Amino acid sequence: MKSLIERKRDGGVLDPDELRWIIAEYTADRLPDYQMSAFLMAVFMEGFEPGELDAWTDAMLRSGDVLDFSHVGAPKVDKHSTGGVGDKVSIPLAPMVAACGVAIPMMSGRGLGHTGGTLDKLDTIPGFRSALDPAEFTAILERTGLVLAGQSETLVPADRRIYALRDATATVPSIPLIASSIMSKKLAEGLDALVLDVKVGTGAFMKDIGRARLLAETMVGIGEAAGTRVVAVLTDMNQPLGRAVGNANEMAESVEVLRGGGPGDLVEVVERLGAEMLVQGGITADRDEARSLLRDAVASGAAFDKLVEVVEAQDGDPSVLHDPGLFPTASREHVVTSPRPGFVARADALDIGVAALRLGAGREAKEDGIDPAVGISVEVNVGDEVAAGQPLARIAWNDQGRLDVARPLVERAFVIDEQAPDVPPLVYEEVS
Amino acid sequence: MKSLIERKRDGGVLDPDELRWIIAEYTADRLPDYQMSAFLMAVFMEGFEPGELDAWTDAMLRSGDVLDFSHVGAPKVDKHSTGGVGDKVSIPLAPMVAACGVAIPMMSGRGLGHTGGTLDKLDTIPGFRSALDPAEFTAILERTGLVLAGQSETLVPADRRIYALRDATATVPSIPLIASSIMSKKLAEGLDALVLDVKVGTGAFMKDIGRARLLAETMVGIGEAAGTRVVAVLTDMNQPLGRAVGNANEMAESVEVLRGGGPGDLVEVVERLGAEMLVQGGITADRDEARSLLRDAVASGAAFDKLVEVVEAQDGDPSVLHDPGLFPTASREHVVTSPRPGFVARADALDIGVAALRLGAGREAKEDGIDPAVGISVEVNVGDEVAAGQPLARIAWNDQGRLDVARPLVERAFVIDEQAPDVPPLVYEEVS
Repeated sequence: MKSLIERKRDGGVLDPDELRWIIAEYTADRLPDYQMSAFLMAVFMEGFEPGELDAWTDAMLRSGDVLDFSHVGAPKVDKHSTGGVGDKVSIPLAPMVAACGVAIPMMSGRGLGHTGGTLDKLDTIPGFRSALDPAEFTAILERTGLVLAGQSETLVPADRRIYALRDATATVPSIPLIASSIMSKKLAEGLDALVLDVKVGTGAFMKDIGRARLLAETMVGIGEAAGTRVVAVLTDMNQPLGRAVGNANEMAESVEVLRGGGPGDLVEVVERLGAEMLVQGGITADRDEARSLLRDAVASGAAFDKLVEVVEAQDGDPSVLHDPGLFPTASREHVVTSPRPGFVARADALDIGVAALRLGAGREAKEDGIDPAVGISVEVNVGDEVAAGQPLARIAWNDQGRLDVARPLVERAFVIDEQAPDVPPLVYEEVS
Repeated sequence: MKSLIERKRDGGVLDPDELRWIIAEYTADRLPDYQMSAFLMAVFMEGFEPGELDAWTDAMLRSGDVLDFSHVGAPKVDKHSTGGVGDKVSIPLAPMVAACGVAIPMMSGRGLGHTGGTLDKLDTIPGFRSALDPAEFTAILERTGLVLAGQSETLVPADRRIYALRDATATVPSIPLIASSIMSKKLAEGLDALVLDVKVGTGAFMKDIGRARLLAETMVGIGEAAGTRVVAVLTDMNQPLGRAVGNANEMAESVEVLRGGGPGDLVEVVERLGAEMLVQGGITADRDEARSLLRDAVASGAAFDKLVEVVEAQDGDPSVLHDPGLFPTASREHVVTSPRPGFVARADALDIGVAALRLGAGREAKEDGIDPAVGISVEVNVGDEVAAGQPLARIAWNDQGRLDVARPLVERAFVIDEQAPDVPPLVYEEVS
């Protein structure tokens, strides 16, 4: 191990067998954490060549179970987002795409820090179970063409251990290490294709387009080497996506989209990614036709029914879907208003995400609980013209102390200018 | 710790309190090895600013006892070598300098790999004890002005732990980490001044003059910040120093020097470093006069008597010093001869050092024992004219298998050219 650390430290290249050996020995507890952390820091500094990254990712994914849904006739496609504020895309997207004939073995995570997690949002459905054993997971996928589960403990155990070590040793923000962590988990799902939503902006992990593009290209390259089609779409995360930031409120907004409504930016991202999934899944080669299929699935109620079906399959009570007014809501509301007339120049995703976290909608640490009923509704988008006193955001709160911390963050998130600002594009580019 | 690792990873600067905190927490077992190894790798990559290095070294030296010999009237000066092949300089040097009125609280190490260690050489004196408790150490220094001991367990415990971690995580060859390791141990000896012998060449840790100069400057800077005068002399280690490479044979050669003989290159380095110690110790300001004092100490027998005195004080039997023929010698000898007439273009220190190691004179690992009686006598220097069949080296051996491994190494160490080569200087430069 010492000579392998040394080689990476000096910018050298390790061969696939050496990288597989490191993962195997580490997972088998035969390599101490202190050697692994020194190696990870060397990788942080010197990177991986594409061939090294492919072998490293492959070794990670083979550290545990690798799912095989080849007996499921439909094409298997999943979507993964690098995480953002108000990013509830998966919840309307998955039933829309599944209603069009793509099977989605979706595994999601919980929120941490200022970014939310799909599982926390789904948990606001009474009775809903995301912790499924492998047999249940497969049975539900076969029956409904969709399953919305948490990450299985038996998939990619190497990633859990390596991620915990990276978290403790300041080696998280490394493009090859991020890419291999994401891709090993997704490739272990036994997919035919994967659509990645790489968020870019203040509220995203990748703050600038250059790093986001590099991460996207890196993940697409890993997919290619593994024989899985991967398309990455770079989307904006300088302002929250949609209006709702929280948990129950994001579920309600997701239902709106499935009912044919919802904020325009959210619908656009859902349709863009959904169309990509249908194309990659081979349902149609034409993106416009794919969009029509998705809209038809919404208009016909098939998409909404698919969500009801999967929620029932996972023991959830679908009453909240039929009547979103039943979702828990904080009893008190504070309205942040515009101090003057003008144009919304900024509605900062990071500030609003951190405000939601402080309100109780997110977790500072993995062990923390959350308050599903609190959240923020962002009433304006960048570029909107506003009057003095017009609501910019509504904060639904339960705890005065938490509100006192969150409110100034929400206030400073907004900048109102006299001039109409340049509005950032919602979708920057696609990498495939 | 995570944020400190992160800052160093990104090339930032830590303040003295933060660095002291790291050393204190790590030594107190409150910081896991995996965070320390990631930090050390970040330091390997990004280095330390001078201010950081001074604080780091100071924190290391304060992790254990710091000696105080202020009650000893004589100036306290030590010499430290970065390690070489045939480097027995300390053994004749220390009694010569002590005989001139400088007190030398010398702590030495054992050999590892192809470089020898002063303690292993001294151990060939029957009865000699280098493991001294603090009271003995001080008493012998007070009585004889010289003590030749091993590193105390109570001095700089942080260095032992950090060095072991560096050794396992490929972070040894880092100039700031090497410099702080050496200097923390030497500064803990309570010295007025320190003379460093920084070896440069194939048989040294520093292969090129640039890295050796940087290490020397770094150590001199640490000494300055700590208020201790430090002078570094860069000396050649492309060929072994003196003739003898081994243990008992190096002791015998050291006695030769104290008797007024010995190989010219060894005598020159001993006098150069010794003169520096006398000047730094304030015995005289003039280097030429310092050399005269050293020669007088040899000619009068005072230097030899000083060695006898300290050996007796440390329970050694001085008979071997009076009759070096009593030192153990391997019974069999293999002579490597010149294949043709010409000039010695190379007598490679690394090859000869590794050959001595394989013969049994050194250790592959810390736990290994050594054979004090085996060794190599190098009969020629680079630049010498030789006849075909003339002896280049004599190998004193005890084990046929070991000889078979060592012999080709010794053979390939020598290159005989038709042209007289450029002879490398023995002393490159001084850094102070």
